Amino acid sequence: MFHELGSCGYGQAMSNPPSPTLLSHFQAQLGPRGYTSDPRDLEPWLTDWRGRVHGRAAALLSPATVEEVQAIVRAAAEAGVALVPQGGNSSMVAGAVPPADGTALLLSLRRMRAIRSISGEDNVAIVEAGVILSDLHDAAEAAGRRFPLSLAAKGTATIGGLVSTNAGGTQVLRFGTMRALLLGIEAVLPSGEIFDGLTALRKDNRGYDLRQLLCGAEGTLGVVTAASLRLVPAIGSRTVAWVGVDEAPSALALLRRLEARLGEAIESFEIVPAAGVDLVLRHIEGTRAPLASTHRWNVLIEATAPQGAPAPDLETALAEAIEAGLVADATIAASEAQAEALWKLRETMSEAERIDGVAAKHDVVVPVSLMPELLEKGSERVEARFPGVRVLAFGHLGDGNVHFNVRAPEGADDRAWLAADGPAVSAFVHDLVGEMGGSLSAEHGIGQTKRAEFARTASPARLHALTAIKRALDPLGIMNPGKLIP
Amino acid sequence: MFHELGSCGYGQAMSNPPSPTLLSHFQAQLGPRGYTSDPRDLEPWLTDWRGRVHGRAAALLSPATVEEVQAIVRAAAEAGVALVPQGGNSSMVAGAVPPADGTALLLSLRRMRAIRSISGEDNVAIVEAGVILSDLHDAAEAAGRRFPLSLAAKGTATIGGLVSTNAGGTQVLRFGTMRALLLGIEAVLPSGEIFDGLTALRKDNRGYDLRQLLCGAEGTLGVVTAASLRLVPAIGSRTVAWVGVDEAPSALALLRRLEARLGEAIESFEIVPAAGVDLVLRHIEGTRAPLASTHRWNVLIEATAPQGAPAPDLETALAEAIEAGLVADATIAASEAQAEALWKLRETMSEAERIDGVAAKHDVVVPVSLMPELLEKGSERVEARFPGVRVLAFGHLGDGNVHFNVRAPEGADDRAWLAADGPAVSAFVHDLVGEMGGSLSAEHGIGQTKRAEFARTASPARLHALTAIKRALDPLGIMNPGKLIP
Repeated sequence: MFHELGSCGYGQAMSNPPSPTLLSHFQAQLGPRGYTSDPRDLEPWLTDWRGRVHGRAAALLSPATVEEVQAIVRAAAEAGVALVPQGGNSSMVAGAVPPADGTALLLSLRRMRAIRSISGEDNVAIVEAGVILSDLHDAAEAAGRRFPLSLAAKGTATIGGLVSTNAGGTQVLRFGTMRALLLGIEAVLPSGEIFDGLTALRKDNRGYDLRQLLCGAEGTLGVVTAASLRLVPAIGSRTVAWVGVDEAPSALALLRRLEARLGEAIESFEIVPAAGVDLVLRHIEGTRAPLASTHRWNVLIEATAPQGAPAPDLETALAEAIEAGLVADATIAASEAQAEALWKLRETMSEAERIDGVAAKHDVVVPVSLMPELLEKGSERVEARFPGVRVLAFGHLGDGNVHFNVRAPEGADDRAWLAADGPAVSAFVHDLVGEMGGSLSAEHGIGQTKRAEFARTASPARLHALTAIKRALDPLGIMNPGKLIP
Repeated sequence: MFHELGSCGYGQAMSNPPSPTLLSHFQAQLGPRGYTSDPRDLEPWLTDWRGRVHGRAAALLSPATVEEVQAIVRAAAEAGVALVPQGGNSSMVAGAVPPADGTALLLSLRRMRAIRSISGEDNVAIVEAGVILSDLHDAAEAAGRRFPLSLAAKGTATIGGLVSTNAGGTQVLRFGTMRALLLGIEAVLPSGEIFDGLTALRKDNRGYDLRQLLCGAEGTLGVVTAASLRLVPAIGSRTVAWVGVDEAPSALALLRRLEARLGEAIESFEIVPAAGVDLVLRHIEGTRAPLASTHRWNVLIEATAPQGAPAPDLETALAEAIEAGLVADATIAASEAQAEALWKLRETMSEAERIDGVAAKHDVVVPVSLMPELLEKGSERVEARFPGVRVLAFGHLGDGNVHFNVRAPEGADDRAWLAADGPAVSAFVHDLVGEMGGSLSAEHGIGQTKRAEFARTASPARLHALTAIKRALDPLGIMNPGKLIP
């Protein structure tokens, strides 16, 4: 039924390259701060964070207001020219890199960085798309509140990108992904209309939730220009521990034990294999091993308490877990500096891996109860099927989310191996995860690099519905072409 | 741009009346338990809960499996016949009542009432659409867990309806609406395809979130047949208090004070005016006033603690609030029976109001900080504009959600007044709420009864996007016609 729409001429449109007239129009409209076609200015924004996907664009448009975004989208729609919205360009799936043919224009939201309001009384922050995550953290803290979403790229990732990709991070266990923190949204739709859904409401049942539709749409249904976000009370105290365990099931058992004992105090529960700790210690300056001996699995735990409440007694709970044989060794940070040092081990893991060499990376998720099986038996199956490869699986145990990375055999030419064997490895991993009721994208989205695998594994019903929605809202196909929709 | 779609012939389609052949087909397919055209069987399902909207239908289809639902949707699509999905028919906006012209068929999900699985380890329940909310409560409790969404209609409302309307209730303050508890969904799309999104995943970023799109779509984009839902640890102890305050701002100040003091222990914070308590005491058997004297505003508070954790010290916190002059009087339930009795005062309020007479009802929401203003000044403005009317405003203070009901002047013919003045009253209330940055539907949805006001107040961008999505996924217009989409 959906395909009938195509017969009406709403197929995946080919967009036009921008004409000199259109570029002059944008240059005049946006001025020197809002427009550049200088290749040196564009260069940092044409390649993804991992340095694997390269695009081209004739110009970088940097509007400062939602009205300027609207004018850009209208002009682009009229000319049939595609736009690639971009925040911090920290996508792990090349979701913000323009197509290689150079037909699309880069639309940076980075100049829209106003924090429009923060209300402690409503526990709401209204922020523009270009606000950097760590700046929002600071602003919320200054208001005696907290924005409870964080991830390694917090110094560059922007709110617009985090909303458009439904970002996850290290506090999902307690607070959910961006979707759960998103109260309202302002966006320019492909039609050029401004969707002003920037409410500060806790409930709002006015039809289809366009806010939730735009969240995770990766810029393919419009340009997110601002969001209203839920804040939570500031942290009174936090306790950070590093725990060594011998088997992955023990880590899950520990999580459930701590949850029963400390309730919602457990915010983060991150699992890292010994090989991952090694990589970080080797490549990241100023890191050191937190435990005296090596353990097959390491868990980083953060527990918090609101201001005025007693600190959660993680120490006693861990001591009991050691006695019960679940935990081999553990250390609790005695200072904020120590806590930061433990977190650094976790947060620099992707960076350390990138320095070490390329890998076939997979951001997968399974039901939490199956996470130990994926970490251990799943890794064994991949290593058995592709002799010589080394699996490095780490991630958010409490969410069932594993960054399941497969590294080239020792001594192999990394890039040649990746080009030759990468697709088969990824297909194998995704099928494995699919058999376990999981998903091939937990938090990174689809972007460019997962599009083929998404097309291969998704059900026809899902693909038909996605395509129908895309065609309905962006009939000209001008919003972030080449991403997400197969 | 969206309107161009119409020129392609995908306008709001008029559906066909069911032919005798189609009815015979369904009768043969579904058998006597799954098909009836007996007016006595149909009668209870043709009128809304409030008894104000009446529809007609030639037959009631009651499939027992998702495959039967699929077969029904396919046959209906082929014949161009509309379907009205129905759960417990407890909609407050006549969202499940068929059109008066009798062209649509009723599609009851009530036979699909299997609880497919409950996993304590994953904290997930997978349940079919026809499961009644209180049955899910019981099943989760038996598994040592809790499904933390509850509302007055819990004995009749079904999971399918609760998902399709993004239901709220009395625990939104802590756990969010249904949307926040919805991990996965199974639905039959208008094309007849089964969308099998019944995952038990905490994260899943595979493109547009169809789960969130179907949640709150009121059956206009497909038939929800099952859902996977988040469970939380069982309650160890609960403390229920009834508090009298003299001014609405004191109630909000009390909430913020308790949150700072007891954190997430506060689950419910419901506000009720003196007149509301009066109505309940007058009309509902077995109720009695909880406090010795009458207070302008009353607050029902529930605080909980997980098993093994100490009970939240609501008593001390309330004693301090009395000393601080925020609270006039308070009582804490000393037993489960007393707690139930306090809750009964809140949960029977809609019932008491219905018995007392008709009212122009509004399920509105404003930012929490403006809730006291809406309750007090908002009520005054309505009573000043429409002399003689009596506003009864009560609801979920912690969510900013007010059931803002305007009752006819004393002695007036209720129904005549409602017909004559109701629309003007509603427009006035909705405009007032709109000025405050609020929404005309907090948790009841749009259904039939709010459709005109929704069309009047919604932005063109919102209406265009909704219409485009509806046309894209249901080009024949067979899913729950006459609801939501103006």
